[in-house]
Amino acid sequence: MTQELVAQLFGKALSNPILDRMDDAASLDIEGRIAFTVDSHVVSPIFFPGGDIGRLSMTGTINDLAMVGARPLYITAGFIIEEGFLLEELVRIVASMRDAADEAGVQVVAGDTKVVERGAADGVFITTSGVGSIPDGVRISGSNARPGDIIIVSGTIGDHGATILSKREGMDFEVELQSDCAPLGRLVEEMLAASSGIHVLRDPTRGGVAATLNEIAVSSGVDVEIEEEKIPYRGEVRAACELLGLDPLVLANEGKLVAFVAENDAAIVLETMRASRYGADAAVIGRVAEVESSRPRVYARTLLGSRRILSMPTGEQLPRIC
Amino acid sequence: MTQELVAQLFGKALSNPILDRMDDAASLDIEGRIAFTVDSHVVSPIFFPGGDIGRLSMTGTINDLAMVGARPLYITAGFIIEEGFLLEELVRIVASMRDAADEAGVQVVAGDTKVVERGAADGVFITTSGVGSIPDGVRISGSNARPGDIIIVSGTIGDHGATILSKREGMDFEVELQSDCAPLGRLVEEMLAASSGIHVLRDPTRGGVAATLNEIAVSSGVDVEIEEEKIPYRGEVRAACELLGLDPLVLANEGKLVAFVAENDAAIVLETMRASRYGADAAVIGRVAEVESSRPRVYARTLLGSRRILSMPTGEQLPRIC
Repeated sequence: MTQELVAQLFGKALSNPILDRMDDAASLDIEGRIAFTVDSHVVSPIFFPGGDIGRLSMTGTINDLAMVGARPLYITAGFIIEEGFLLEELVRIVASMRDAADEAGVQVVAGDTKVVERGAADGVFITTSGVGSIPDGVRISGSNARPGDIIIVSGTIGDHGATILSKREGMDFEVELQSDCAPLGRLVEEMLAASSGIHVLRDPTRGGVAATLNEIAVSSGVDVEIEEEKIPYRGEVRAACELLGLDPLVLANEGKLVAFVAENDAAIVLETMRASRYGADAAVIGRVAEVESSRPRVYARTLLGSRRILSMPTGEQLPRIC
Repeated sequence: MTQELVAQLFGKALSNPILDRMDDAASLDIEGRIAFTVDSHVVSPIFFPGGDIGRLSMTGTINDLAMVGARPLYITAGFIIEEGFLLEELVRIVASMRDAADEAGVQVVAGDTKVVERGAADGVFITTSGVGSIPDGVRISGSNARPGDIIIVSGTIGDHGATILSKREGMDFEVELQSDCAPLGRLVEEMLAASSGIHVLRDPTRGGVAATLNEIAVSSGVDVEIEEEKIPYRGEVRAACELLGLDPLVLANEGKLVAFVAENDAAIVLETMRASRYGADAAVIGRVAEVESSRPRVYARTLLGSRRILSMPTGEQLPRIC
């Protein structure tokens, strides 16, 4: 399997008029401000229920663009492949990328392939970079949360992290866990059309909702308070977390977002999300307050009314979750 | 060495106002058409005379942008790091990236870091993606070569490939070989300012000048003829090639370009290149002709006047040259 052969395979599977031109760089027309991002993907196992590294590499970067309010448009992909990796698995991975691209309405416009000797990489790593256009007037940032904002999560929490973990531990559940791996560009587009009061969007990947809320609290200089019983979970994720001794709030998600919305617009945004494919289980989980103590904090209120500090997940994070 | 620690190190070393915002994607203002490209870098050894994987990852992507006539502006970098890789080596690599960025006038606007377990990668891999702006009226493409065009190379050939190869073979030369690894954005800008007759630009990386000329011949549907004695080489590269039994025309370059220029503009373009830092050894090496036989070919004329077909380098290419 030579590098050229692989490059041809990718060129064919991901074909579009821009990619087909095969120049050193793609030439694109974009109006106005652009968003630009990157994500490396090293997930293990490479194939998992609900997706694979191909789908994940597309949705990860598409979602990063959507989280600044951009319309995802163009993707580049750099592949690092271990010599001896099966060609049929590569074909499956690239087909997944194509499906995700078509679903999200984006194009892969440039690619690069490097083959390294056996043992110098583990199967395949994919680094995707994305460009999107930011509509006029949209200013979404992790530092825009304001006291009074309502916090909405777009669906059940922890699905991706619990799936990868249980696969690695070799655990079997009666109902199989499934990654939530999905492109959120359309959901965000619909939300932005419904309201100009969306202040923050973020996808809670590594470190989960706990990390995301802590980052936003610090960036915006606010306190965040969530109500634990309002957070949506799948039963099988809860079961897996109990078995593994994990808090689902720190598990990675790959098809969910957290939105901070002006109070007056929260109802319409929630309704819009619930009408969208990847927002059907959306729920209000908390709100933003003025900073109470010496520094911004995230609090979780339990069913019984007590309140604990939900801290930033620390120590070694699980490697190769995405 | 945790992922967070590394991310902080990178954020500090590559700091600029856009990167510092730490949103999921960078938000940028660019006028007009944009160029977008990607390159994964897996070079071994990671440090080599004339550069390292950090400098190479910047210049590789900067040069891809320049080769479509774009002004390189913004870079993203995805790092895949093997657990246990030395922090001080990472510091050196990121400092190299910063130096190359400053030299080329580009900014690293987003980054991602994944740490994988020992043995799952070999040291560090860096995938960079770049965005540049294409000036109005610039239409540079591998398919634009026309009969009569003059072919110019920007300097000595084979320096990078010969350096990596001889390091791997453990060879020692009296005069040390050095990679040519350099950003070519300014050189291209000056060339475009001097002439509107530049039809093709390409950097002869993997597969060297031989591969580049063959690609252009096929894309443009023309024959290419070069004169062997006009191709500039360093003496130590020639010596290394003789020892290793290699043709310098198939060796990778990382700071050179090949330009196809309208005959009338060739003199002014050559003069402009020679006045520029990375074009001092520029030379005319050949010209474009109508296709002579059934398909486009590249011919090399020897000092004695005989002519051989310079074919596309085939078979397994040297892995991890960049």
